[in-house]
Amino acid sequence: MAARDIILKELMEACHLQGVEALLSWDQETYMPAGAGAARSEQVAYISGLRHAELVGEPLKNALEELIDLETGELRIMTLNDRETRQVKEIWRDYRQQAALPAGFVTTLAKHASISQQAWVRARKDNDFSFFEPFLTKMVQMQQEKAKYLARGATDYDSLMDQFEPEMTSEKISGLFNEIRVRLVPLIKSLQEVKHRVNGSILTREYNIDDQWAFGMDMLKAIGFNVNNGRQDKSAHPFTTSTHPTDVRITTRLRENDLKTALLGTLHEGGHALYEQGLLLEEYGNPLGQAISLGIHESQSRMWENLVGLSASFWRFAYPKLQSKFKDQLRNTERDQFQAAINRVRPSMIRVEADEATYNLHVMLRFEIEKMLINENFPVAELPQLWNDKMEEYLGIRPQNDAEGVLQDVHWSFGAFGYFPTYALGNLYSVQFFNQVKQDIPGLEEQFARGDFSNLLKWLRDNIHSKGRGRKAEELVLELTGKPLSAQPFMDYLETKYRKIYNLS
Amino acid sequence: MAARDIILKELMEACHLQGVEALLSWDQETYMPAGAGAARSEQVAYISGLRHAELVGEPLKNALEELIDLETGELRIMTLNDRETRQVKEIWRDYRQQAALPAGFVTTLAKHASISQQAWVRARKDNDFSFFEPFLTKMVQMQQEKAKYLARGATDYDSLMDQFEPEMTSEKISGLFNEIRVRLVPLIKSLQEVKHRVNGSILTREYNIDDQWAFGMDMLKAIGFNVNNGRQDKSAHPFTTSTHPTDVRITTRLRENDLKTALLGTLHEGGHALYEQGLLLEEYGNPLGQAISLGIHESQSRMWENLVGLSASFWRFAYPKLQSKFKDQLRNTERDQFQAAINRVRPSMIRVEADEATYNLHVMLRFEIEKMLINENFPVAELPQLWNDKMEEYLGIRPQNDAEGVLQDVHWSFGAFGYFPTYALGNLYSVQFFNQVKQDIPGLEEQFARGDFSNLLKWLRDNIHSKGRGRKAEELVLELTGKPLSAQPFMDYLETKYRKIYNLS
Repeated sequence: MAARDIILKELMEACHLQGVEALLSWDQETYMPAGAGAARSEQVAYISGLRHAELVGEPLKNALEELIDLETGELRIMTLNDRETRQVKEIWRDYRQQAALPAGFVTTLAKHASISQQAWVRARKDNDFSFFEPFLTKMVQMQQEKAKYLARGATDYDSLMDQFEPEMTSEKISGLFNEIRVRLVPLIKSLQEVKHRVNGSILTREYNIDDQWAFGMDMLKAIGFNVNNGRQDKSAHPFTTSTHPTDVRITTRLRENDLKTALLGTLHEGGHALYEQGLLLEEYGNPLGQAISLGIHESQSRMWENLVGLSASFWRFAYPKLQSKFKDQLRNTERDQFQAAINRVRPSMIRVEADEATYNLHVMLRFEIEKMLINENFPVAELPQLWNDKMEEYLGIRPQNDAEGVLQDVHWSFGAFGYFPTYALGNLYSVQFFNQVKQDIPGLEEQFARGDFSNLLKWLRDNIHSKGRGRKAEELVLELTGKPLSAQPFMDYLETKYRKIYNLS
Repeated sequence: MAARDIILKELMEACHLQGVEALLSWDQETYMPAGAGAARSEQVAYISGLRHAELVGEPLKNALEELIDLETGELRIMTLNDRETRQVKEIWRDYRQQAALPAGFVTTLAKHASISQQAWVRARKDNDFSFFEPFLTKMVQMQQEKAKYLARGATDYDSLMDQFEPEMTSEKISGLFNEIRVRLVPLIKSLQEVKHRVNGSILTREYNIDDQWAFGMDMLKAIGFNVNNGRQDKSAHPFTTSTHPTDVRITTRLRENDLKTALLGTLHEGGHALYEQGLLLEEYGNPLGQAISLGIHESQSRMWENLVGLSASFWRFAYPKLQSKFKDQLRNTERDQFQAAINRVRPSMIRVEADEATYNLHVMLRFEIEKMLINENFPVAELPQLWNDKMEEYLGIRPQNDAEGVLQDVHWSFGAFGYFPTYALGNLYSVQFFNQVKQDIPGLEEQFARGDFSNLLKWLRDNIHSKGRGRKAEELVLELTGKPLSAQPFMDYLETKYRKIYNLS
């Protein structure tokens, strides 16, 4: 077999294992009996170890070495075309990352991640940070160790972030966050001064869970989610996972007195799912059939959640349907009123339920705290205090308990440090892409108003989904929009939109 | 590491893979999106290949060779106690079976099994045997090939049966079936002559699916099914699977105009699940923590389904609960009447829904056909005709279509030839065990009538579940009852019971 064939075979096998791991984790969050946690952790750890062994094993290593210098990343053969070159470079990038981690460390970490995630579920349910603390302490130590192995950035935190957003640095993130902060803080302040202009109470009436579910499924189908190659379930923390592009699964959580969370959460995860369902089947198993970065992934979820799902044109289509589902609750509410309500800006405790404007402050807070934990050994025991203080500083509100504070997010429990900044990047990318989409597709809003999202989806499929890791995140935005990654389009969008909704001069 | 430790480590890893395979298959039958079938087959095949590689790999082989002669099965060290000796002998048995199969054959078969199983689902839904035919033809050929590799019996069919029921032979099965037939055929005939004495129509009124589900869950909990270590879902064909003794999953199917199928099916799968939940956690990963044989497994499911679930004492407990769940439907039906109805004997098309008496004829039919397919190359294309002819011969009724005929069972689709006889063995074992239980536990029926099944479960746990593969099936029945496997107790039970219900002299 030629070197490239050997590599692709090994990667395909690793992808089978990744799909299996995805199913094990999905099941753990959805249907697994509570008492099976310990066994599941063993299974996940074992599969994770097998995958690592495949990715750093001799067959792949030797074949890859024929094509590329494993130390420097310089190509050794000159017959590859651009596409193949990119493919090999990305395979090398992954190889280097995996090879940096000792096998024992990989399985120990996978096992701890699974155990710690289960501990988080319990701690959050019981509102008891102290139960979670030893698991998190160990996880932070393991992540620091991981960062040292990876050694990909100026700081340990940068090394971790590079796993999720290749080549992004804390310095660049800090610059973007400062740009956002300087315009966002005054914007939120001025909206709060006229907060009476938007009433959100309509969203917290009693909305039957099953009807909410049915409406969410209708919306998923409307935006193009393929139910033959995916499904939706319920879980404590919404997520998207994929065992294969033909099997992409999302989850949602529903509450009777909250219409917004499940609906926007479903569009959000639906956006992630459309990306996964849009990856090329013929490239399955290699980087050209994989998502570019979590920032780009988040640009898809945030686009469908916010730029589509909060827009006036979307609700021209969706509101009559919602109204007929919830006749009693919405009989006397006009569409404009409803659309203003779901766009209400108000500092709140839970990131995933935050409005578009305050959302980024949640991310900034996590970015600050993560750097302190990873780079500065901030004591985990003092985390609730730090969290609450920062919430006051950033959002002017203080959590009453850890479940609505430091325990709200699942990420740290399974070791995803350096992940949060990609959520803010997703916001920036989403607006940059969407501005381009509006230029490229005339009459987009009229299409949305008819419930036709196919041209938007086609644009995303053609320009983003089908390209896999054919370019880096920042190359992609430059290629598609002619401009580099920037906070300005996003802030322009927020200011324009919310000044209008809140009737500010 | 000592040889035994190496062996146990390798087996534990193989068990992790087995658990993962179980989850992949469970998901395929319950929640997997329809379009994910091809990818799932690849995943299953890959995991299956990994497991085979583990089981025949050098580490296990070399370590096992230190303890036992791999050719003859003679022990090489004399320091093992009885328990360890049995453990090593059983490990050797498994090793020999796995080592007989080439790696390529194992993955090809696993992949075909997954694909063919999906083809069966479609064929059955569309009532179209011709769609399934090429998949089954290939499967029969692969099973013939497998039998040649295994070479464990007097005929190819015996070699296949040995996988499910170690050391059972077709000759022995034929003997038992003849013993059954000679008493069963006249019994059924005499019951049919007075069939008007039992009216089953009460069971086909309209019973709400959700209420049936709730009642089934109540019964599962009553018999001791641990919902912290298991769950029930819906599927096209009911089954039990286990990813680990702490995660045992059963499925059921419900129909609105059929009270019996889901209820007895739930007790049946519940019986399997109690066995799996009762395996010793500390022996997980080796034969002492595994079920003895499928015949013994089936003795557990049939015991809970028939000897408990069809008994008068069970319904003294359960009927008032059922009546209060289905007030309108059961208001005017006395308990005796109801209990007679669910015990009605009547030749019918579907094995899993057959009564206790005619059930065995369904198994005999499959046993005959399987031998013809495997040993005599009977043409698969002519299977529907053969099936229907045999149904007329054995049961006096002829299927109107393949969905209620040759396509009804899932087993052949995934290659389980030689499996069906274990269902009949389960019936025989169940009565032999239960006769002993009644001797060992005074007042058993009064306990059932109070809804207390704990002493029965404890007996099964102590005497069967916790022993793993510590003895062979036939050794176990001899040890527990003092008598060898025999059809006589079963036939005595049937005759006594049904003569009473049908009021025969």
